[in-house]
Amino acid sequence: MAVSWEQSVTSSINAIYLLFSAYLVFVMQLGFAMLCAGSVRAKNALNIMLTNVVDAVVGSLSYYLFGFAFAFGTGPGSNPFIGTHFFALEGVPDGEYDYSFFLYQWSFAIAVAGITSGSIAERTQFGAYLIFSFFLSGFVYPIAAHWVWSSSGWLSPSSANLFLGSGAIDFAGSGVVHLVGGIAGLWGSIIEGPRVGRFDAFGKPVSIKGHNATLVVLGSFGEILVAYPTTTDQGNWTAIGRTAVTTTLAGSMSGIVTLFGRRLLIGHWDALDVCNGVLGGFVAITSGCSVVEPWAAVICGFVAAWVLIGLNMLALKLHFDDPLEAAQLHGGCGAWGLIFTGLFAKEEFLIQVHDSGVGGISRSSGLLLGGGWGLFGAQVTELIVIAGWVSVTMGPLFYILHKLRLLRISIHEEVAGLDISSHGGYAYHNQDEDERPQRYNDYIQMRN
Amino acid sequence: MAVSWEQSVTSSINAIYLLFSAYLVFVMQLGFAMLCAGSVRAKNALNIMLTNVVDAVVGSLSYYLFGFAFAFGTGPGSNPFIGTHFFALEGVPDGEYDYSFFLYQWSFAIAVAGITSGSIAERTQFGAYLIFSFFLSGFVYPIAAHWVWSSSGWLSPSSANLFLGSGAIDFAGSGVVHLVGGIAGLWGSIIEGPRVGRFDAFGKPVSIKGHNATLVVLGSFGEILVAYPTTTDQGNWTAIGRTAVTTTLAGSMSGIVTLFGRRLLIGHWDALDVCNGVLGGFVAITSGCSVVEPWAAVICGFVAAWVLIGLNMLALKLHFDDPLEAAQLHGGCGAWGLIFTGLFAKEEFLIQVHDSGVGGISRSSGLLLGGGWGLFGAQVTELIVIAGWVSVTMGPLFYILHKLRLLRISIHEEVAGLDISSHGGYAYHNQDEDERPQRYNDYIQMRN
Amino acid sequence: MAVSWEQSVTSSINAIYLLFSAYLVFVMQLGFAMLCAGSVRAKNALNIMLTNVVDAVVGSLSYYLFGFAFAFGTGPGSNPFIGTHFFALEGVPDGEYDYSFFLYQWSFAIAVAGITSGSIAERTQFGAYLIFSFFLSGFVYPIAAHWVWSSSGWLSPSSANLFLGSGAIDFAGSGVVHLVGGIAGLWGSIIEGPRVGRFDAFGKPVSIKGHNATLVVLGSFGEILVAYPTTTDQGNWTAIGRTAVTTTLAGSMSGIVTLFGRRLLIGHWDALDVCNGVLGGFVAITSGCSVVEPWAAVICGFVAAWVLIGLNMLALKLHFDDPLEAAQLHGGCGAWGLIFTGLFAKEEFLIQVHDSGVGGISRSSGLLLGGGWGLFGAQVTELIVIAGWVSVTMGPLFYILHKLRLLRISIHEEVAGLDISSHGGYAYHNQDEDERPQRYNDYIQMRN
Repeated sequence: MAVSWEQSVTSSINAIYLLFSAYLVFVMQLGFAMLCAGSVRAKNALNIMLTNVVDAVVGSLSYYLFGFAFAFGTGPGSNPFIGTHFFALEGVPDGEYDYSFFLYQWSFAIAVAGITSGSIAERTQFGAYLIFSFFLSGFVYPIAAHWVWSSSGWLSPSSANLFLGSGAIDFAGSGVVHLVGGIAGLWGSIIEGPRVGRFDAFGKPVSIKGHNATLVVLGSFGEILVAYPTTTDQGNWTAIGRTAVTTTLAGSMSGIVTLFGRRLLIGHWDALDVCNGVLGGFVAITSGCSVVEPWAAVICGFVAAWVLIGLNMLALKLHFDDPLEAAQLHGGCGAWGLIFTGLFAKEEFLIQVHDSGVGGISRSSGLLLGGGWGLFGAQVTELIVIAGWVSVTMGPLFYILHKLRLLRISIHEEVAGLDISSHGGYAYHNQDEDERPQRYNDYIQMRN
Repeated sequence: MAVSWEQSVTSSINAIYLLFSAYLVFVMQLGFAMLCAGSVRAKNALNIMLTNVVDAVVGSLSYYLFGFAFAFGTGPGSNPFIGTHFFALEGVPDGEYDYSFFLYQWSFAIAVAGITSGSIAERTQFGAYLIFSFFLSGFVYPIAAHWVWSSSGWLSPSSANLFLGSGAIDFAGSGVVHLVGGIAGLWGSIIEGPRVGRFDAFGKPVSIKGHNATLVVLGSFGEILVAYPTTTDQGNWTAIGRTAVTTTLAGSMSGIVTLFGRRLLIGHWDALDVCNGVLGGFVAITSGCSVVEPWAAVICGFVAAWVLIGLNMLALKLHFDDPLEAAQLHGGCGAWGLIFTGLFAKEEFLIQVHDSGVGGISRSSGLLLGGGWGLFGAQVTELIVIAGWVSVTMGPLFYILHKLRLLRISIHEEVAGLDISSHGGYAYHNQDEDERPQRYNDYIQMRN
Repeated sequence: MAVSWEQSVTSSINAIYLLFSAYLVFVMQLGFAMLCAGSVRAKNALNIMLTNVVDAVVGSLSYYLFGFAFAFGTGPGSNPFIGTHFFALEGVPDGEYDYSFFLYQWSFAIAVAGITSGSIAERTQFGAYLIFSFFLSGFVYPIAAHWVWSSSGWLSPSSANLFLGSGAIDFAGSGVVHLVGGIAGLWGSIIEGPRVGRFDAFGKPVSIKGHNATLVVLGSFGEILVAYPTTTDQGNWTAIGRTAVTTTLAGSMSGIVTLFGRRLLIGHWDALDVCNGVLGGFVAITSGCSVVEPWAAVICGFVAAWVLIGLNMLALKLHFDDPLEAAQLHGGCGAWGLIFTGLFAKEEFLIQVHDSGVGGISRSSGLLLGGGWGLFGAQVTELIVIAGWVSVTMGPLFYILHKLRLLRISIHEEVAGLDISSHGGYAYHNQDEDERPQRYNDYIQMRN
């Protein structure tokens, strides 16, 4: 009886924590929708919000049917590379996984699709979103999650299989979530090419400003919430407070550095830069937030800001156009986050969070804390294999869509704006509505 | 001592869970205000936000003074039809109810008033909101809640009084919350009639678009949070994960079906349709989310989408004008949710959530799962008696307000917009403010 | 073993609760940014959002480095007036404080800076924000927190040092948070003077409306969340439900009274008045929410509404211009809240929340409940010393910035708007972007 009560308490605490985290993901998803809406031109606001909602619902069904099974379907016949059980939640809850766990993991799946959709905003056909979301949330992302987060994954910290003697540490997904979404967006955006008018006839960049900076700020705060640490191992309550502190410090530092760095480069203070800077710091600390000291988090944020600033300058030079900076922010800072953990993780915290090394698993600090090359090697391995895996799957997918003429909208539609061409109206209606039909007629005439 | 610690743990877990849920309701209330603001024309944005806030504050006081007592005031002299204790929280906390429980129930009370206020938006006098909120939150809704949610209610699952041998299952209020709000809105909207200009001289509908689709999307996500399952029985932690999964799947499915269904009917992709579709799925699953399998939730969402699409087409045909589609969405999908639970509830889950059948209470599966007509009958009974109860109370209330000329604003005010006529200004101020006085003068002249 | 499990449960519950509260603060910070953005003119929207983000990140680093140590650094050599340990979290976690506690306290520190930044909006140099945030979050606020909230503080309820035999009760910061932020804003706003055009040549006030009331409502709800009770003493679960109920009732009552009071004074219903009224009630109840009866909370809200209305009328008369009404709302209602607790606190609840009086500490009810002058005296003491402390620190700081010409922007910048003069663009971009360069040229010409 007493045991039963104890089990009930433990399960209730875990359920509350997971539900609470899952709720936050809704807030994040909302934040991302607002961030996207504010970052594009008013003529595409309706379109991007729609695609955000559709990403979430298509991704939900896809992850429910296939993704969760590929990611966590460990059991007879499963292997370190792909899960094989629990399709359509068949057999869940079992001893290891309950519904709360599914919900929690599902929330990451739709976040990944959201990141990628930012990179291809303002110029992509509606059908392409349906296809890439289904594929990314149901197959590409779950495989990466299986490798690192599943107990039987070959890169998992609880696995002894890796030649390096140490699995990769990716607490809340710098690599599994942000790098996957960012690399997918990178390929989508490269294959689509820049938006019409983003670079002029001489190749000089022309600033395309989002229509509503307030929405961007609103959305950034929302996104910040999801970057906040949520753990896959609920037993380690001692570590959870630390994750919150490191995350806060990394984001703050990155925001300040971006603010001053961009001030030096551009000449005025920019609120949106700060928002992106804070997000960059959060993305970077996501991997190691539970296993580093607060002072290391400050370093993490400092570097993340310069990674973001540098990649944005590089993107301009290479004529790479990502309307949300998603590839730079989530891909670039996510990659830095993996490396950072390999440099600054602390052995004491690693053992606290991931148990001590038994059965051939070593637990040693990051490279700069004197732990040698083991963990650093595992982190670099995760970076390389995830970037490679997403490239060889999402790259061809976007390329096939491109060749089938299913990817990019026509130049007419792009100039007119997706809201009027695909969605029959605009997001905003003034009190004077007389001009609307005129504009639509203009569009119809332009097409003919 | 050990027992005392155990009690403390249990009460702390329950308190956190209830507080967490109550916080979410603030988010929901905010979401609803934004949803409403974005769905009406800019000239009424201030008015509808005001009425949303006022609904909440008047409803709070009314529910504190009377509503909670009518709903949960069980004790000597109480009966299956109405509660009689705890007016103004006199005697709370007692052994059964604490402040957290009150807060949690109060949050539902103000949600009901919010639903109804959507149906009568853009044409209702301010005083009418004060009166209907007070009456709905303090009397009409609490009675329905007493019947189904109070342990002594005649339709409660823990009551053996019902001739069917089974109480109705309405976990988080498809009937008690959404159907009540929707039916009240239905009567309000019918008695007021459509907005000026909603149907032209030949009876053809003229689209009146909300002024800000971004707000609608923002608000929808907020509302989604409240649709998320929150339980009145905190002990059943095992069921809570399931409710979150079924809710997610029902909403996702309903959103996708609405997207494609409306695409077929209207010819373009519409983000707002998806939002309403997701909400419809959530409203429908609210009743049975804790007692059905995930696959059944997918069916629930599929049907909910068509219920919403069908009712919206019917509303157009009948010249029924509900600016927020609140009657169709909350009333229609809420009704479907009650029936759905009667069809697909699973005996095993019913026993898990509501204990086994003792004292003459039967616990058997829904009709389509072979459990016979008992539960189905109880669900249909709830649907009929709630629709009837709200109709015989709120219908006359709105009719009396109408006859006393306290319900609808004048046509002058409606054309000018409530913000300028009742609230002395608009929600939005451009950088050029010169035209404002002109417009106000126009309005003043028009009145004379 | 059993003890270890019990400790783990207790710490997990506390961690969830603190994390949950800290998450809410992000929502609050977001709400405050939106409230500010909507309350200023469109030409300053970008600026105020930036300063809100910068307040938070500068305040975070400052509180991490110094503030937490000044506030809670109790240990060898510390004293009742200032803390001396835990700089840069050195030595945290220790037995008494863990990371969650730091995070929770940090959230209050950035809220204080946010309040003050509202008072000086639309006319303050960017650098001034950096300086005052650093000083306020890292020094002025932490000292006040040490006095009242640290167990060794001289005004703390757990200290017996005070001549009155009773420490001050300030559960969630009517004085420590809201009064500090409000008084700081008062001095900043007085020293800066009113915005250009706020009072005409004859001294008559000219209404300057915020550009987006929807944002104001959105932001108010966000702020409401933080006003919601969060406790510094997580053991008292019985009190937490009560705090939520008293807070709800105080806010509702204050909102209704403001609505009708302003209707009588101004002649129309104003949604923004209700929002501010609700906030005023929340600020006032913050101090005593855990130790008063629900009926007393209704009185608290009633008075808070009139305090706010009265101070706003007084501000107009004195030509005091606070764009967010932050000094009136947070300063005025915060002060009333301290007094209210001294009048209506209940001995039974005081003992429940703060333990019984041992070692010379008395626990007696408020003045109007027959407890004598002890608690009332302590509350008035807190009011006076906090108002004095903030005045002698922040007043000179703003004055020095003023004398160094680092405080107020030039009249050219103020007329043109901060977004174009300091941030190189506006928050909103129409679909027609042609006029933008024109306006910027106008500004450049005007400067020359």
